Amino acid sequence: MRYHRFEKNLPFTDAEFERRLALVRAAMDRAGIEVLFVTDPSNMAWITGYDGWSFYVHQGVLVFHDADPVWWGRNQDANGAVRTVWMGDDRVIGYADNYVQSTERHPMDDLAQRLIGMGLGTTRLGVEMENYYFSARAYMALHDALPGAKLIDATALVNWQRGIKSDEELVYMRKAAAISEKIVDGLMERVEPGVPKNEVVAEIQRDAIMGIDDDWGDYASIVPLLPSGSDAAAPHLTWDGRPFQKGEATFFEISGCYRRYHAPFCRTIFLGEPPDIFRSAEAALVEGLEAGLDAARAGNRARDIAEALAAPLERAGIERGARCGYPIGLSYPPDWGERTISLRAEDETILEPGMTFHFMPGLWMSDWGLEITESILITENGAAECFCDRPRKMYVKP
Amino acid sequence: MRYHRFEKNLPFTDAEFERRLALVRAAMDRAGIEVLFVTDPSNMAWITGYDGWSFYVHQGVLVFHDADPVWWGRNQDANGAVRTVWMGDDRVIGYADNYVQSTERHPMDDLAQRLIGMGLGTTRLGVEMENYYFSARAYMALHDALPGAKLIDATALVNWQRGIKSDEELVYMRKAAAISEKIVDGLMERVEPGVPKNEVVAEIQRDAIMGIDDDWGDYASIVPLLPSGSDAAAPHLTWDGRPFQKGEATFFEISGCYRRYHAPFCRTIFLGEPPDIFRSAEAALVEGLEAGLDAARAGNRARDIAEALAAPLERAGIERGARCGYPIGLSYPPDWGERTISLRAEDETILEPGMTFHFMPGLWMSDWGLEITESILITENGAAECFCDRPRKMYVKP
Repeated sequence: MRYHRFEKNLPFTDAEFERRLALVRAAMDRAGIEVLFVTDPSNMAWITGYDGWSFYVHQGVLVFHDADPVWWGRNQDANGAVRTVWMGDDRVIGYADNYVQSTERHPMDDLAQRLIGMGLGTTRLGVEMENYYFSARAYMALHDALPGAKLIDATALVNWQRGIKSDEELVYMRKAAAISEKIVDGLMERVEPGVPKNEVVAEIQRDAIMGIDDDWGDYASIVPLLPSGSDAAAPHLTWDGRPFQKGEATFFEISGCYRRYHAPFCRTIFLGEPPDIFRSAEAALVEGLEAGLDAARAGNRARDIAEALAAPLERAGIERGARCGYPIGLSYPPDWGERTISLRAEDETILEPGMTFHFMPGLWMSDWGLEITESILITENGAAECFCDRPRKMYVKP
Repeated sequence: MRYHRFEKNLPFTDAEFERRLALVRAAMDRAGIEVLFVTDPSNMAWITGYDGWSFYVHQGVLVFHDADPVWWGRNQDANGAVRTVWMGDDRVIGYADNYVQSTERHPMDDLAQRLIGMGLGTTRLGVEMENYYFSARAYMALHDALPGAKLIDATALVNWQRGIKSDEELVYMRKAAAISEKIVDGLMERVEPGVPKNEVVAEIQRDAIMGIDDDWGDYASIVPLLPSGSDAAAPHLTWDGRPFQKGEATFFEISGCYRRYHAPFCRTIFLGEPPDIFRSAEAALVEGLEAGLDAARAGNRARDIAEALAAPLERAGIERGARCGYPIGLSYPPDWGERTISLRAEDETILEPGMTFHFMPGLWMSDWGLEITESILITENGAAECFCDRPRKMYVKP
């Protein structure tokens, strides 16, 4: 019986958390890992339910083969952990505040002492070497403080387990997709020549967080991106206060978010009469998207989607250098991708039912850009299912 | 003469960027660093003007003693760099897209080859070991690919140069503060028993991004935090769809943001009649804040603020374990602090005119919380100046 001081509002059933833990433990076993230290906040949340904007300080979840996970982090955030994780309160450990951004001591020293105290000073410890929240210094500090342990690179070990979504997760992604649709509908209404971009973003953010009825909106892991005209060559510029202009295309990359689950969606709005270059790019892109959706079938490979997309684009003389998609689901800033599969020619991963991707063939040319994308679900049979249901085209407001 | 293909909308004068570069080069000199590789997006922006949500892939700025900095990142983001940095277009280098989240190659291999190509394969290279955007794997990959180089820890080297704000920066921080005031005014109007929390956050985000007149709002580096009742023990919980309730205190930690500059501000709203414990905590906290503001003088130390705050709190029987503030200014997610000074008993840093802090003595007790904070400027003479001008008290709506 687990002791909980606070009533919990867990996002998933016990069975779902047990499913996840079993997957992680099996992957640890295959990798020869006795204890896994998970620092990716998305992985932490997926395994334990932990939710809070505390990832700007060092924290993590320890996964064991034979005991419940332990949440470890800053003392003040342990208060958030006992309120959000499924484990008992005794599985939550806080470290003293003077470890935070100290020039004298590192939080990994505390973690190492905890592990040694548990008799795990010589364990085979998995760490996520490629993660925003496990710095080079953190690795060095942990390495030095645990001289008897063997540190094993467990980058993306948990991320790979997240690839196939459960029915419970798909419910959340559909709610996120409904919010994405609401945002795009609002854009079509509001974007007009002369309207400052930040005003449109203000309404996007309001729509996103209001959500739909009882399905309240969470913060997306990336802010809205909406470069216009020549700036649309650059996919990751954010907004400013300049007005939308007639004769320019703006693409909007947005995502609704429901309890940390995302369904990214991009559409482009052209104000005025699009020149031929846009019309022909649109035609080739839509043809490529439809070919890619048809190739996005269980049993095919990730690269098949990329190659199906590329053919009509090449016929139109458009060469994309970039991958055309990535897996999506639960995420925290700064990225809403899962950082495992990439939809590109060199990725041979076999597609399986329940995998979800942002099929994202953005065109970023030297002085213009066009984005029409779909968040998709690989199904048991047949082509991929799109989470959002909006016209697959460049929107034009004459 | 620098060649720029695009018209730029640089946020600062040439003189300001020159001031910054001179400070960084002097610090590099003191640390024996020949080339500095800056990966903190805040440092990248502060040195070059670069602005974009691209920090979820590897990127950075190389600083040299005798040549303009080089922006290095993903090919598609080089399009954003040539539009936002002050250097010439030939100082922007992109790497191929198949380095992104690849299981076969690491972007640091590309960076190493670039450095070798510049004749810098054996340089003394500064790297930011403690940063979200320089992973353990990135360090190992760079280390292995540059066997002749000496990697030197340059954690916070640039951050320390950012501490004293220029007049140009203070203009932006005051604009951010005006947005913070607008947000808090909106909260006082909107927070009522029965209103779902996400609806209030939706309006906060709308207010923040609408900005004030022509001063358009940017995204803050942390989302609004607003735990209520017992959850207010946990400072970093985000929102959900539950309604505000009579008899509960909610603290709001928010920040306006103007061109990436922040002025964080926290106020607490009690709905109903606050119990004595809140009233006495409020009195002690306000007394502590005022003592701290008086101690926040040029020539005093960081610790003096913390100690001035602690005295009245201790008299009221309140022991805080946490630091009570940190420097603020330009920032990118996931943190709006500068990660240098901490306002706590062990920090002996001398306060200087132009330094800016979030004086943040949050009280997070076992089952309640109270936040009343100020963003402050250390002045030439006298006590600190507060960026925001709102009553320093717990707001009560009976």
